[in-house]
Amino acid sequence: MIRIGVDANGGDLGVKATVPGAMRAVSMFKDIEIVLYGDENKIKPLLTNDERIKIVHTEVTMDMGEHDPVRAVRKMKDSSLDMVMYAAKNGEVDAVVTSGPTQCVVMAAHLIIRRLPGMERVALCPIIPNYDGKPRLILDCGANVELRPEHIGEFALFATVAAKEVLGIENPTVGLLNIGSEPGKGREIDKEAYEYLSNLDTINFKGNVEPNQIIDSPTNIIVCDGWSGNVAIKTLEGTAKMMGVMLKDEIKASFGGKFGYLFMRKNMKRFKKRMDSKEVGGAMIFGVGKPVVKAHGNSDDYAFSSAIRQVYQMVKSDLINKVVEKLPKVEEVESND
Amino acid sequence: MIRIGVDANGGDLGVKATVPGAMRAVSMFKDIEIVLYGDENKIKPLLTNDERIKIVHTEVTMDMGEHDPVRAVRKMKDSSLDMVMYAAKNGEVDAVVTSGPTQCVVMAAHLIIRRLPGMERVALCPIIPNYDGKPRLILDCGANVELRPEHIGEFALFATVAAKEVLGIENPTVGLLNIGSEPGKGREIDKEAYEYLSNLDTINFKGNVEPNQIIDSPTNIIVCDGWSGNVAIKTLEGTAKMMGVMLKDEIKASFGGKFGYLFMRKNMKRFKKRMDSKEVGGAMIFGVGKPVVKAHGNSDDYAFSSAIRQVYQMVKSDLINKVVEKLPKVEEVESND
Repeated sequence: MIRIGVDANGGDLGVKATVPGAMRAVSMFKDIEIVLYGDENKIKPLLTNDERIKIVHTEVTMDMGEHDPVRAVRKMKDSSLDMVMYAAKNGEVDAVVTSGPTQCVVMAAHLIIRRLPGMERVALCPIIPNYDGKPRLILDCGANVELRPEHIGEFALFATVAAKEVLGIENPTVGLLNIGSEPGKGREIDKEAYEYLSNLDTINFKGNVEPNQIIDSPTNIIVCDGWSGNVAIKTLEGTAKMMGVMLKDEIKASFGGKFGYLFMRKNMKRFKKRMDSKEVGGAMIFGVGKPVVKAHGNSDDYAFSSAIRQVYQMVKSDLINKVVEKLPKVEEVESND
Repeated sequence: MIRIGVDANGGDLGVKATVPGAMRAVSMFKDIEIVLYGDENKIKPLLTNDERIKIVHTEVTMDMGEHDPVRAVRKMKDSSLDMVMYAAKNGEVDAVVTSGPTQCVVMAAHLIIRRLPGMERVALCPIIPNYDGKPRLILDCGANVELRPEHIGEFALFATVAAKEVLGIENPTVGLLNIGSEPGKGREIDKEAYEYLSNLDTINFKGNVEPNQIIDSPTNIIVCDGWSGNVAIKTLEGTAKMMGVMLKDEIKASFGGKFGYLFMRKNMKRFKKRMDSKEVGGAMIFGVGKPVVKAHGNSDDYAFSSAIRQVYQMVKSDLINKVVEKLPKVEEVESND
């Protein structure tokens, strides 16, 4: 049995998404057990089938607008987010899914579950909306605003193992996000990262990838610092959203548009689905000792069940141990704060 | 008469776009004269109407894949790009339009026309694809990979004057691109820039703008360093392009889709037009002594004429002098290299 801990109070919809999402996941996979950390009084009425689902009660919830994640994680030990992370740390669950506030999730994973020996940083790694049936990973998308080339190298290695084990890609390729395709482009840090990745024999580095290629990147993985990744992924989301709004506007603007739409409703739905983060699951947190997936804050039950499926695959493929095998062996236990 | 210098050899299509683009612009505005710097043998057959259009012959063209812009600009003084920039410097034309390679255009403007006293950096400022009828500016989008807060302040001021004079926006507002909306977000440089812009009384600063808000930004202007702006604008372009491809795919995927499309062709065209850089003109180069517009490399004649219209408005509104009035007075002429 794979035991998955769910932060049931987290996200914009809270238990309304997490509870039906958990039931959906349990019905998909027979070897899943779920522990819901959240408000029992709100969960129970929604839990129409509690087969392989347990509740650990807490009413405390991390606020989605939390401005001081470190303080919040340290102080709110009775929050559903902290509790599910402690459960993972103590081995009560094998993995964590939450749609709580991103920076709090990253900090809680970091401070409570803690980094793997050999990983100096933690990364936030979403899956890029699917264009051609080939999933692509981009990291770091915001766990760290600044990184050294070695950290980007660690992330490239981690993502290489994840792309192989979780996404089933043979010999995954890695690109460095840069504003030009040739070596020597970008800031000093980007030139250094290019050099560093070129000399790393544990990854299959293919050079720079420009930001207009993120969706149809020639590489399976794109690495970058957390600032740049966050700018890129948020610009991508914002553009996709606004294009959807504009398309809707234009279709509604005339009778012909509305009439024509009747015939292509299915096509439009498929189009929407292809760009939809709900399909993809969530962003993986790489670098800590247990699989953690951060689902989108506005996840509904379907999106949340996709995130559970994703973390299930991370556990099932034994991702963490497979990464540990590849990481440089650390002689002493490092200070981890 | 407003005299506009055109790099006729530049861009992916060269004279095939620039010559009909120039003829189109001349027919739109009666107070325009155009000088085409380019290959006379190729221009003449296309120039079916040479009213108010002159040719200055050169066969030399800056390569679109040029890897060393500084060297290219310094060495290729007989290129159409260098020649049009020298013409602007010497007052033979009032402004420049080119769809040549971006970094070469920026370097040529910088090295040949030279910076305005009081401007320490040059910025590349595209107009963001129009969502709601309100044009928005974002800068720097790639002229500099790294910037100090004072430079971002200069750009905010320049763009404020341009938004008012060229785009007709009363009291334009300025936002700082950042990965969070609250102050204190981002890298050290972003926190410093926030502080600096907050204390600048020549602009109307409204705080941070997140990258998912670029298209529908609450501010008229978004400022950032050239690395971040380039990542954002290229991600935006790539996402818009790939969404167009996916939409087309889905519509073509079934008979219903194709049939429905017949009724909404006009709607789809309007949708495409709204996201199309051809409508917008080009990226303005801010900081040098003459108006320069860099049209998209793949501009057709329509896009190129939009870029000419844009630089025409920059000259007509006396943008450069209006910016100079607002810039801090520089006592001595600075070294400009």
